Amino acid sequence: MVAKGLEGVIVDTSGICRIDGDAGRLIYRGYDIHDLASNSIFEEVAYLLWNGELPTREELERLKKQLSFERTIPDSLKRSLRELPRESNALDVLRTAISALGIQHQLKKPELADAMIITAKIPTINAAFDRIRRGEEPLDPRADLGHAANYLYMMTGREPDPIKEEALDKYLILLADHGMNASTFTARIVASTWSDLYSSVVAAICALKGPLHGGAPAPVLQMLKEIGKPERAEGWLRDHLKDGNRIMGFGHRLYRTTDPRAEIMRDVASKSAERSFFELARHVEQSGVRILQEYRPERKLYTNVEFYSAVVMDSVGLPSDMFTATFAASRIAGWTANVLEQVANNRLIRPEIEYTGPVDRKVVPIENR
Amino acid sequence: MVAKGLEGVIVDTSGICRIDGDAGRLIYRGYDIHDLASNSIFEEVAYLLWNGELPTREELERLKKQLSFERTIPDSLKRSLRELPRESNALDVLRTAISALGIQHQLKKPELADAMIITAKIPTINAAFDRIRRGEEPLDPRADLGHAANYLYMMTGREPDPIKEEALDKYLILLADHGMNASTFTARIVASTWSDLYSSVVAAICALKGPLHGGAPAPVLQMLKEIGKPERAEGWLRDHLKDGNRIMGFGHRLYRTTDPRAEIMRDVASKSAERSFFELARHVEQSGVRILQEYRPERKLYTNVEFYSAVVMDSVGLPSDMFTATFAASRIAGWTANVLEQVANNRLIRPEIEYTGPVDRKVVPIENR
Repeated sequence: MVAKGLEGVIVDTSGICRIDGDAGRLIYRGYDIHDLASNSIFEEVAYLLWNGELPTREELERLKKQLSFERTIPDSLKRSLRELPRESNALDVLRTAISALGIQHQLKKPELADAMIITAKIPTINAAFDRIRRGEEPLDPRADLGHAANYLYMMTGREPDPIKEEALDKYLILLADHGMNASTFTARIVASTWSDLYSSVVAAICALKGPLHGGAPAPVLQMLKEIGKPERAEGWLRDHLKDGNRIMGFGHRLYRTTDPRAEIMRDVASKSAERSFFELARHVEQSGVRILQEYRPERKLYTNVEFYSAVVMDSVGLPSDMFTATFAASRIAGWTANVLEQVANNRLIRPEIEYTGPVDRKVVPIENR
Repeated sequence: MVAKGLEGVIVDTSGICRIDGDAGRLIYRGYDIHDLASNSIFEEVAYLLWNGELPTREELERLKKQLSFERTIPDSLKRSLRELPRESNALDVLRTAISALGIQHQLKKPELADAMIITAKIPTINAAFDRIRRGEEPLDPRADLGHAANYLYMMTGREPDPIKEEALDKYLILLADHGMNASTFTARIVASTWSDLYSSVVAAICALKGPLHGGAPAPVLQMLKEIGKPERAEGWLRDHLKDGNRIMGFGHRLYRTTDPRAEIMRDVASKSAERSFFELARHVEQSGVRILQEYRPERKLYTNVEFYSAVVMDSVGLPSDMFTATFAASRIAGWTANVLEQVANNRLIRPEIEYTGPVDRKVVPIENR
């Protein structure tokens, strides 16, 4: 029996994340994503994913200090970033930067300290690349700012207002983990060979780059900008579907009902985005759901997390070609938590494939070919 | 049902490689590995894996030209290699170099031309790093030499004698593909997200780095050197097993009988290695098989491909810390063939994981923790 795409195949047990696609629920370590989004910040969620418990006040303060201490990147890396073409893909840059930071002498077992280091440095790498390509100097991270606020500060050069900070913080919480998505699964496979943590993260970035996994928020934004006005939504969507295209930002392989992250992200967008742009998005969402139901009456398609993620990331001032690299700045918490869980009870992940090619061929020597 | 390690789970159909673990057979595209090792060179095998057919004479000449044309690496990459600490892990270096070469502007669909480019450049990267860390100048590739001969020339500075060239060429053939091993599976997962070919290869290198997958040949050599003399083999092996260690180079998850690659590699080693060292290896092999049968009478363990690979790679003058990077120079053919097959009939690879953690927890606000 061939399980192409491994849909429904259960690869392991885990204490990290539960997705209930029928009920539209997402749970990290026993906490509902709505509860975490309302009552915690990204640093607490990362701590929770890594350690299984939310931090006490002292533990949170210590984690914040550790992360802000580790935010700087070496000058050699900044020099390398300056040598890159400005048009370089931000995921390729992040992949190469983490790979370079991970050059080691001896094979090192994955450990939490390195998970924190990589989590701390991803925003700095993203922001440094973004500023360099715009001809600006990279900014040093600011230890007095939280993870989300410092990211926005390093990107924009301005201390963000609390609404923008909170919007990015919620985004980072909502995307931090999501079961055995392709990048997290990739990270676990790499860890299962007893490779190191940097290699696991690099491989995860490789998978996140693919538009079927990490690459859809930018096209959502493009769609919204192309539509431009609520009254143009229906026509645009119908034309788009008529040409055989998918509508970006709708539907998810696992959720049979609304994606809980999309619901929360909609609320975040309603506070963070320009009123008219949010209302455009809301209108496109409603038109999309209605029109898609005509096309696929057997299954109701809702907006997925990427739809309002695009609106939120745009609203906080991130350029659309940094959206997937910002996704990595969130999902790093889940990747590393999964790697640590994998190595704590490891078995090499090595499936099989069914050979359906030719049989019993004989090599004709090259002289006679 | 949890399929931990995915053992026996069939992830797809494929026309590339068949492993018959009960019969001890390995087939690439319908050709037995014994036949290919006797009657072809690495370039033909790479062509076969990529295209499904062995090349005609003209096709082989064209491929050789293309590969030798693509062997050079940019000066910027050589400069980066010069800046690395000499003790850097060769797989970390290769991972970072391929990642840097793969920095693109636009997302590019995997295609054969890029598979050839990466295959051509891996030996040059490995050799350049190895020479730089020894304080020597990297050598330019020589277009008049075949893939194996040029690799040895760039590593050692000498044109290899035909026995060494053939030994490395056979090694490259034998390791070029092997079903859904962890690195090839990783490459296919990354490709399944519609990421690019460089990302797939980088992720595969990340998995190959792990000693459970790509990292055992160097320890085999160390074992043989520690044993030193045939008469010390039995005592060394028994002491090693008594301490609860595994013996490197024995056993394979898939082969219930001899690994056909190990058989061929033994023949290669008998021609390429120093007579006394080969006889030591042969004695350690025979002692190991006998002693392991005492410890695990329910399953006979044979030497795997890594055992004589270590002897062969040592015999052609490769330093042991370049063994896994040389493995990558072979497996690149299989990785890229698998990526091209994956994208030709793609479905996102996304399994599930069973949540076994706590449930129904409520966030206590940080002030009250």
